[in-house]
Amino acid sequence: MKKIGILTSGGDAPGMNAAVRAVALRALDEGLEVYGINYGYAGLVAGDIFQLTRQVLADKIARGGTFLYSARYPEFAKVEGQLKGIEQLKKFGIDALVVVGGDGSYHGALRLTEHGYNAVGLPGTIDNDIPYTDFTIGFDTALSTAVDAIDKIRDTATSHQRVFVVEVMGRGAGDLALWAGVATGAEAIVVPERDYDIDAIAKKLTEYREAGHDNAVIVIAEGVMSAQDFKAELDKHGDFDSRATTIGHVQRGGSPTARDRVLASKMGNYAVELLLAGKGGLAIGIENNQITHHPMEELFDEKHHADLDLYDMNNKFNQ
Amino acid sequence: MKKIGILTSGGDAPGMNAAVRAVALRALDEGLEVYGINYGYAGLVAGDIFQLTRQVLADKIARGGTFLYSARYPEFAKVEGQLKGIEQLKKFGIDALVVVGGDGSYHGALRLTEHGYNAVGLPGTIDNDIPYTDFTIGFDTALSTAVDAIDKIRDTATSHQRVFVVEVMGRGAGDLALWAGVATGAEAIVVPERDYDIDAIAKKLTEYREAGHDNAVIVIAEGVMSAQDFKAELDKHGDFDSRATTIGHVQRGGSPTARDRVLASKMGNYAVELLLAGKGGLAIGIENNQITHHPMEELFDEKHHADLDLYDMNNKFNQ
Amino acid sequence: MKKIGILTSGGDAPGMNAAVRAVALRALDEGLEVYGINYGYAGLVAGDIFQLTRQVLADKIARGGTFLYSARYPEFAKVEGQLKGIEQLKKFGIDALVVVGGDGSYHGALRLTEHGYNAVGLPGTIDNDIPYTDFTIGFDTALSTAVDAIDKIRDTATSHQRVFVVEVMGRGAGDLALWAGVATGAEAIVVPERDYDIDAIAKKLTEYREAGHDNAVIVIAEGVMSAQDFKAELDKHGDFDSRATTIGHVQRGGSPTARDRVLASKMGNYAVELLLAGKGGLAIGIENNQITHHPMEELFDEKHHADLDLYDMNNKFNQ
Amino acid sequence: MKKIGILTSGGDAPGMNAAVRAVALRALDEGLEVYGINYGYAGLVAGDIFQLTRQVLADKIARGGTFLYSARYPEFAKVEGQLKGIEQLKKFGIDALVVVGGDGSYHGALRLTEHGYNAVGLPGTIDNDIPYTDFTIGFDTALSTAVDAIDKIRDTATSHQRVFVVEVMGRGAGDLALWAGVATGAEAIVVPERDYDIDAIAKKLTEYREAGHDNAVIVIAEGVMSAQDFKAELDKHGDFDSRATTIGHVQRGGSPTARDRVLASKMGNYAVELLLAGKGGLAIGIENNQITHHPMEELFDEKHHADLDLYDMNNKFNQ
Repeated sequence: MKKIGILTSGGDAPGMNAAVRAVALRALDEGLEVYGINYGYAGLVAGDIFQLTRQVLADKIARGGTFLYSARYPEFAKVEGQLKGIEQLKKFGIDALVVVGGDGSYHGALRLTEHGYNAVGLPGTIDNDIPYTDFTIGFDTALSTAVDAIDKIRDTATSHQRVFVVEVMGRGAGDLALWAGVATGAEAIVVPERDYDIDAIAKKLTEYREAGHDNAVIVIAEGVMSAQDFKAELDKHGDFDSRATTIGHVQRGGSPTARDRVLASKMGNYAVELLLAGKGGLAIGIENNQITHHPMEELFDEKHHADLDLYDMNNKFNQ
Repeated sequence: MKKIGILTSGGDAPGMNAAVRAVALRALDEGLEVYGINYGYAGLVAGDIFQLTRQVLADKIARGGTFLYSARYPEFAKVEGQLKGIEQLKKFGIDALVVVGGDGSYHGALRLTEHGYNAVGLPGTIDNDIPYTDFTIGFDTALSTAVDAIDKIRDTATSHQRVFVVEVMGRGAGDLALWAGVATGAEAIVVPERDYDIDAIAKKLTEYREAGHDNAVIVIAEGVMSAQDFKAELDKHGDFDSRATTIGHVQRGGSPTARDRVLASKMGNYAVELLLAGKGGLAIGIENNQITHHPMEELFDEKHHADLDLYDMNNKFNQ
Repeated sequence: MKKIGILTSGGDAPGMNAAVRAVALRALDEGLEVYGINYGYAGLVAGDIFQLTRQVLADKIARGGTFLYSARYPEFAKVEGQLKGIEQLKKFGIDALVVVGGDGSYHGALRLTEHGYNAVGLPGTIDNDIPYTDFTIGFDTALSTAVDAIDKIRDTATSHQRVFVVEVMGRGAGDLALWAGVATGAEAIVVPERDYDIDAIAKKLTEYREAGHDNAVIVIAEGVMSAQDFKAELDKHGDFDSRATTIGHVQRGGSPTARDRVLASKMGNYAVELLLAGKGGLAIGIENNQITHHPMEELFDEKHHADLDLYDMNNKFNQ
Repeated sequence: MKKIGILTSGGDAPGMNAAVRAVALRALDEGLEVYGINYGYAGLVAGDIFQLTRQVLADKIARGGTFLYSARYPEFAKVEGQLKGIEQLKKFGIDALVVVGGDGSYHGALRLTEHGYNAVGLPGTIDNDIPYTDFTIGFDTALSTAVDAIDKIRDTATSHQRVFVVEVMGRGAGDLALWAGVATGAEAIVVPERDYDIDAIAKKLTEYREAGHDNAVIVIAEGVMSAQDFKAELDKHGDFDSRATTIGHVQRGGSPTARDRVLASKMGNYAVELLLAGKGGLAIGIENNQITHHPMEELFDEKHHADLDLYDMNNKFNQ
């Protein structure tokens, strides 16, 4: 192995740049050449590929987004698309690949491995919805952004004695809502992994108000319903001075937190070690604070499990 | 004058606490007693009033929201409501009042002045929509929050070559959109004070894209239309990979910026000087970097003027 | 057990308030009364104790510092001091205690347990220097503050082609330096756990400069030496345009990160469970992402182990 | 005039990039070519000059530091150095220049103007120490960083009942100390523009402590003395649990605030208008909220005036 490539795929996540940098720096240290592939699989097929030097990487660790860009490219699901990508790999002499993205992007990586080009996957998504990893690259930053926003909203909720329903991202997963809810002292958390009881929530808010605790924040995962819809439901159950707000796309951007940068660095470093050992088709994770790997096929059959202890704990805090 | 009261009214704004603190500390320095009135005019009528000491004020300057709370209270528009408030002023021996809030809350202050209780108004609102002041207390913080959010959104716009339509607050005023747009290098700014030309905007974005500048941010003031609606219009004029997002209630909260704290401190300090001079019915502003005052009546007939030079300058930057 | 007390001791750390809140809310949920003890062991002996209600706790989770205050009180090392503290516990009817602080504060907790008052310890310190826990409450926030500062310093280093020696806290532990160094792409990290080779560092910086990479950041743990002293050493080994800067006390303050809030919440919650189970003399930790506990005695014989893989990895990134 | 150049000089300041971008975008709009000159006057003499395109500028407005780099170059004070610079201007066909930096860098600009190359100066420094401008580019960001740091320090001061002496930058000017002191509710502010009375400060702190207000922050400008030295003086006047801390180089870096970005944009825009009008040798400022200009010679004879009303107001707040 003399040359490796790296691309980012799927929704961008803070820390992707830190991951790319780590892969590149470790690979350079091992005497490899490293190539950045722009626009994910689309750029691979198009040959939008350039050499990564220490100079290019100098200011990347603190940057949000992905300087390699990302793009959707469903055509890579077909053999035809894959073969075009492989042509480019041949052309540039690239022997192996690191892919940073959601588990959707692992399918392409697995196909390349099967074609003889070892590819390793790093979990890059703010949603924390990938199996066999406790945390994904980008989750901590999105969480930090959501918490910062909810803290601000709490100021207004308190000043005006209001109930705010705040929608956070996470696609089908409740992780962002669980962590952000606990971290902001949310009076209720609503996640796809658990049924919610609107009567119980309304009753609790009413009791709180009668006890003089007259503001509240409900954090809801986008995977359940919109903040607007939940507010509409809530309003049927009591005369709350409620507001709905959606934190939105800001959760995807911003300079990565220290945690995300360190996680990305460790994972990128480990990816190169796996490739050096001649391995491919593996997805990297962090489990119980250790960097681990699993065959990509295993991920396709498994579901991510949110930490529902947080849910139960928060309920106890709000009896 | 021996005792003065202070209340916050209307939508909460970062820096209100700094204003209350400044009024209280300066008044204490002048040998006055100072009373905080909770929940705006509602609390005045209800007699929800307590003494402000140096101890109470110790940790307030950096806090968002208003620790005196705010509430709507349309009943204060009627003489009946005003007389109830005056009863409470008599009961507590309060001679004069400072009101922090939007110009809506100045009406109550003017009525109290007419009843013989001098009241001075401080412009506390994130919308910057008050006449005779270049800046309101809270505007700089809301601007800072909006800019921080748009910077994050730019990360995603860049990574995915997208056009983001971002809606900021401001009620009928374009100030937040103008300042946030210039500060984030927005490719277009849409404000109520100027007609927009959707054809021209779409044409420019298309030209940019063809020149390789393939992401854009359009900042739109809520006073024009929602981000969703503008995106829908835009999509009719071209095949942009566009997204709409609303920054929302976070703009009202958060620890005030240094600018807002200093502005609030200066205005609060000046309010006490006006009251000591036996004056009332005055609205405080900052004009051309000087703290000024105007009779409240003048404000009711005047409109706020946004700095439209910013609009023209931004257009020049985006030819 | 009907009433529990809680105090914070040693240097303040962000997240202490979140821990106190969690202990209190979980205890309230279990039908217990909860008492806050001001000023650590000093306040215990002085009887500076007050009841914690949901209302008092409402706005605490996001606050830096400790609203229960902290204070040094070496007299508690003597039986006499301990007995005075126990008198107060009797007076208030407090059966058990939670102590949040560094492992120095665990000695007092262990003594109280031996006297029949179960006490559980939570690791609250920014230094991450407590055995049997991968992370302490406050570490993530201090790390975040340090990284934010070093990012800013990198701007100047880059603009002026300078070498910055940046000193971070950590007392005898290198954790803050290791994490902050990796997270900011430091060209070198200097920690107490490893010898440093000033010749090698100077040689590397010189090579970098010759290759056009003409700025650098060296992160040094306070446990090694001051930034000033290291800069003086470095300057003997080459003609660097170097600067020394110490991040300083800001690392101890600020609103806790989401991670610190969640960690503090989990640990506080678990502390109540241990006390409910009739246990005392235990120190709580997080190991391999699980909340754990160990007898306090074990901690006194054990040392904290920094994650030196980070050190080796960073060296590989900087060959 | 067909081509203009731009350089940054002196200490870097947040917002310099926004200024460069504004100059370039406005000039492009006027049909000019724009050239960036790296490393200030040193790069001018060395011919380190490159064309600025819309693409290069795309992500610069939010970046700290200066992407054109800065460097000291005393040789430009001599005619010999100036002539070498003019050779390069001729070589690249550059007709006029914008210089962003402290007033030290205006001397070079004035010399170039005298040689027939119109040059306009923009005040770029965090110190706010330039005459004929109320604010310099970078001041608001440095202020924001200092205030954020002091807020964190206040957490620890409060938790431990301590007195913190905090040193901020500003060279010979007290502006940063004045604004940061007012914005953080400092119990005392010490600036070069006013004598300080250590007895009075110590007496006030003692009175505060006796009244139960047992923590304090003293903000001192670096132009007076170091925090360490002031602490040593203070300790001679009472038994305070005092600490000294220096905020340091972080004040020079970081993403510029919205204010700094807008100020830099307005000034950069105006610089192009002056050059288009055939003017040179002018320094741009903002006075009473209006963008203004003065002949550079006038600045060399004038001193900057800090807003000492802030000093007096803060003293009134702390009687």
